[in-house]
Amino acid sequence: MSETNPTSISLSEIEMAASRLSGIAMRTPLLESAVLNERTGGRILLKAETLQRTGTFKFRGAYNTISQLSNDARARGILAWSSGNHAQGVAAAASLLSTPATIVMPADAPSIKIANTRALGADIVLYDRYSESREDIGTKLADQNDLTIIPPYDDPGVIAGQGTVGLEISQQCQELGCTPDALLVNCGGGGLTAGCAIAMSARQPGCEIYTVEPTGFDDMARSLATGGRQSNPPGAKSICDALLSPTPGALTFPIAHELSSGGFHVSDASVRAAIRFAFTSLKLIVEPGGAVSLAAVLDGTFDATAKTVCITLSGGNIGAEMLSEILLEKD
Amino acid sequence: MSETNPTSISLSEIEMAASRLSGIAMRTPLLESAVLNERTGGRILLKAETLQRTGTFKFRGAYNTISQLSNDARARGILAWSSGNHAQGVAAAASLLSTPATIVMPADAPSIKIANTRALGADIVLYDRYSESREDIGTKLADQNDLTIIPPYDDPGVIAGQGTVGLEISQQCQELGCTPDALLVNCGGGGLTAGCAIAMSARQPGCEIYTVEPTGFDDMARSLATGGRQSNPPGAKSICDALLSPTPGALTFPIAHELSSGGFHVSDASVRAAIRFAFTSLKLIVEPGGAVSLAAVLDGTFDATAKTVCITLSGGNIGAEMLSEILLEKD
Repeated sequence: MSETNPTSISLSEIEMAASRLSGIAMRTPLLESAVLNERTGGRILLKAETLQRTGTFKFRGAYNTISQLSNDARARGILAWSSGNHAQGVAAAASLLSTPATIVMPADAPSIKIANTRALGADIVLYDRYSESREDIGTKLADQNDLTIIPPYDDPGVIAGQGTVGLEISQQCQELGCTPDALLVNCGGGGLTAGCAIAMSARQPGCEIYTVEPTGFDDMARSLATGGRQSNPPGAKSICDALLSPTPGALTFPIAHELSSGGFHVSDASVRAAIRFAFTSLKLIVEPGGAVSLAAVLDGTFDATAKTVCITLSGGNIGAEMLSEILLEKD
Repeated sequence: MSETNPTSISLSEIEMAASRLSGIAMRTPLLESAVLNERTGGRILLKAETLQRTGTFKFRGAYNTISQLSNDARARGILAWSSGNHAQGVAAAASLLSTPATIVMPADAPSIKIANTRALGADIVLYDRYSESREDIGTKLADQNDLTIIPPYDDPGVIAGQGTVGLEISQQCQELGCTPDALLVNCGGGGLTAGCAIAMSARQPGCEIYTVEPTGFDDMARSLATGGRQSNPPGAKSICDALLSPTPGALTFPIAHELSSGGFHVSDASVRAAIRFAFTSLKLIVEPGGAVSLAAVLDGTFDATAKTVCITLSGGNIGAEMLSEILLEKD
């Protein structure tokens, strides 16, 4: 990982990332729902990255990073470790750029994510997340085969790529003629948060930025509150498999700390209710980690009354079994 | 129903409907998926009316019609009969226009559609679709209480309202800088088909328009082929509850006949596979009747190779039980 301070990732790097992604990543819509507005008492604008290539924003950072590698490095190949969404994003970007991809994934990752990553042409290396270190396995493989590691969040190119989500939100708000009061970002390691914070603070300076995490994994919220990087307590569990990173990134945290206003956390029960709401009233498939901001405005964790609030729907990769189980529950 | 000939519903009436709906109906996105393009060999643009108010395009025609009633007629109230999507569209439009709504629905309509219609404030009158006539029940109730009937498709105001879907598709194609070769319209009574055909033939004259229906309910396709209104054979069954009308409308058929190129039909098995594809690869909820055009490009009924094809996703009101059953099947 590079040594960088917050100001070294600028709006112009996000704009350059947007140029690289133009015509390749989807410009996902900023959706609105009358039912959601009535339910929350605010105006909620949903950035549907569920409709992005591979069903998650992760493609943006991966493509932005891999497309900037030298021809030699691209020919040798890239390596990434991920429980699923970064894996798919990296595999899809590598495939488009004709770059061999090796992905280190936990053996208990959602099978849909392993299958999708394999279908995108990547070599999958499985590990046991309770007894092995993915960083050790990945670093060793990368050294042996001279592969470039694409980090899941703590990398300037990845952060700039994810920042194109925020850039599009700011443009789409302008097109709608509205000024958002707040942006809620689903937060794991903080790549999407940091990128969106840079873009939105430059383009929509009146908009407050908040992170949303699963209860038990609110390391970013506590880090923002205390001013230093905090870790999650051992033993916590959540269905939000995409948001279980242990601590904010060394690069992402200072950016989030400088530019955002704080963080919230939501329970798995709220996330399940949000997935049901997305099915019933939005007609969208959202995975648990992709639904935490929606959960926060629905359960009152974030009071949207009389506000214009942009929220991220950051991923839609949920298996049929889990979705069915959640939909058939009662609120 | 009014006496009208095709040319009496013009592009300008659709443009006026668009003005009435501006800021009230959603301008739904025209979505694109890399996976769907690769799978079909064409460029597929999906008009996602699943994201419309009440999860279906039906709101457009209902609002356009009810908003043009006199204050007296609005105060007395409106009546509609529908198995579900028109019911919800009418109930939502009536609620926004402070108009009492009575909806005659079959007792075996999907319970999600009955519940949603009731939640929108409408009075529901249930009937037995095997022994009773909804038209008789509805006409009698309307006469007794001096209510205005809002027909599901065979009405100039309804056709003009549904035509705003086609108007938006033509505008969104222009914004994308593309010229569609074909538009596939999910077809029940033909309101969406007729409205879209008027708008698209005026704005995108090179675009061929085709209907798609469930197998056993291809009355429009056979009517287009023979030049006269055909009915469906008795006893046919389909899961596409939104598309089971017995014959094309007296108003909608001549418009479709003049402006469209023919019709296709798809099996329930193809529709189920399309619903699974929408879940896995598009992250969208689509109901059976809303998925017939998607089914047609996926199963090869319509060959999209090297073409730019707009397709309609016309509704997303599927119950959790049916969706779960379909998602847990294997392709």
